[in-house]
Amino acid sequence: MELPDRAAAWFRELQERISAALTAADGAAQFREDVWTREGGGGGRSRVLEAGDVFEKAGVNWSDVTGDLPDELAEKMPGSGRAFRATGVSVVIHPRSPMIPTSHANFRCLVKGDVAWFGGGADLTPYYPYRDDVILFHRAWQDVCDRHDATYYPRFKKWCDEYFYLPHRGETRGVGGIFFDYLRRDDIEETFAFVRDAGDTFLPAYLPIVERRRGEPWGEPEREFQLWRRGRYVEFNLIYDRGTIFGLKTNGRAESILMSLPPVVRWRYDHRPEPGSREAELVSYLTPQDWLAAP
Amino acid sequence: MELPDRAAAWFRELQERISAALTAADGAAQFREDVWTREGGGGGRSRVLEAGDVFEKAGVNWSDVTGDLPDELAEKMPGSGRAFRATGVSVVIHPRSPMIPTSHANFRCLVKGDVAWFGGGADLTPYYPYRDDVILFHRAWQDVCDRHDATYYPRFKKWCDEYFYLPHRGETRGVGGIFFDYLRRDDIEETFAFVRDAGDTFLPAYLPIVERRRGEPWGEPEREFQLWRRGRYVEFNLIYDRGTIFGLKTNGRAESILMSLPPVVRWRYDHRPEPGSREAELVSYLTPQDWLAAP
Repeated sequence: MELPDRAAAWFRELQERISAALTAADGAAQFREDVWTREGGGGGRSRVLEAGDVFEKAGVNWSDVTGDLPDELAEKMPGSGRAFRATGVSVVIHPRSPMIPTSHANFRCLVKGDVAWFGGGADLTPYYPYRDDVILFHRAWQDVCDRHDATYYPRFKKWCDEYFYLPHRGETRGVGGIFFDYLRRDDIEETFAFVRDAGDTFLPAYLPIVERRRGEPWGEPEREFQLWRRGRYVEFNLIYDRGTIFGLKTNGRAESILMSLPPVVRWRYDHRPEPGSREAELVSYLTPQDWLAAP
Repeated sequence: MELPDRAAAWFRELQERISAALTAADGAAQFREDVWTREGGGGGRSRVLEAGDVFEKAGVNWSDVTGDLPDELAEKMPGSGRAFRATGVSVVIHPRSPMIPTSHANFRCLVKGDVAWFGGGADLTPYYPYRDDVILFHRAWQDVCDRHDATYYPRFKKWCDEYFYLPHRGETRGVGGIFFDYLRRDDIEETFAFVRDAGDTFLPAYLPIVERRRGEPWGEPEREFQLWRRGRYVEFNLIYDRGTIFGLKTNGRAESILMSLPPVVRWRYDHRPEPGSREAELVSYLTPQDWLAAP
């Protein structure tokens, strides 16, 4: 089998495992599945869970699409011509409890002309400042990166901080993780091996945080803070996120692309958390920092 | 006084009148005012009312800013060089009752190099299908347009339908109104007279609809529909709206620009109103149509 076929099959199997693990962790709700085809070619399988006990909304999408890129996108990418194939899996989890962070991951393989590459990453968006959770998450990504290339974690961690940034707020979207694109070592099989290893890391990097925090008490003020912070998540995804823009501009399935948006969101004019509060401490997390520095 | 100074003063006075009328119509909440200056030059006066009885959020902003446009924006606009001055007033009203439509209006004067022009418009975004309200609103804009130029209403109505359109949803944002830009007749004073007349039309085009619908009963299902439709409003403003993008890219005050976002919003995966329901009828309004056609 050709590399993109094997990648597509592997991503599809990863979708199975992640959706099964999230269903088990939730314990109440099930994923709804939609299988769709794309007019330009290919299709996908979207899975969304709504109104769970633990997860207010979780989406785990798989797709494998082909087509022609619009010129403005084609000229910004490696490889000749406009024909492309893109296959990948993407995950966005919005827990109900403000004590559990939102998380997002995406792993994909792109082929354009005679060039194939991988992209992806995973990042964490907490609402309350639990430093241990951030460290656990970053440690998991550092470990998997280091098994493949000592330069990966520092490069991909920085890339993540730079990518998930809202210039108009002067804030990162969350506490980062890793992000990479156009990844293609001389041996693309080794790159694919890294991506598989990274895909396998998502559940052990995130679920222990869910388990740790699901019993943590919270009330209306914490919920309000979460809904307000979710507004920034929407702003990032709709104004800056390349994946969202790529999807909408290539005539992607809007409901699958926008399943990343939180279920309930609040905007409050010029709101600022009280100095010294946990909420203010969370905001101090939203600037790039070395989470794994020795204390 | 030079034209832009007179325009700035007139827009400021319009802000007074609109915020006073909305305060009176609400009867419970007050506008909070923030006066701000912009690093690049100029400043503004933002007024936001939150948690009113009638208006869940209303913003009436005035600004008069100067600076240098980023190259990518400068080359798309008339006039030489990159130096610009922009002054205007913008209004966004999100009523609490789903029976009262959201409305937006904006009137502005731009100067770049030796060219000055006006832009603006007003549009209506209902949540429930009251055809009489749409007709009242459009009739008001047709009347004011016809007093100045018989070509204005048909052109500006079409421009509005085309501008407030979400390609990824295949829907207009609401039922339209008028939208115009780069407006500059040989006699710019006549253009300014039209803009003043249009600015004066906002309250009589919108407040009678508020008064008509404020007593209309509604409950949880109608509220849910409103929150879900508000998601489309956010999608339009953050993905497509030129004013929002212009503001964020010229380093504008984020809180003033994003005061247009609704206070509470819901995204539901692949939700579709039940066929035959009032909610489905509303969706049928979201395609360009001649609201003033003889029945």
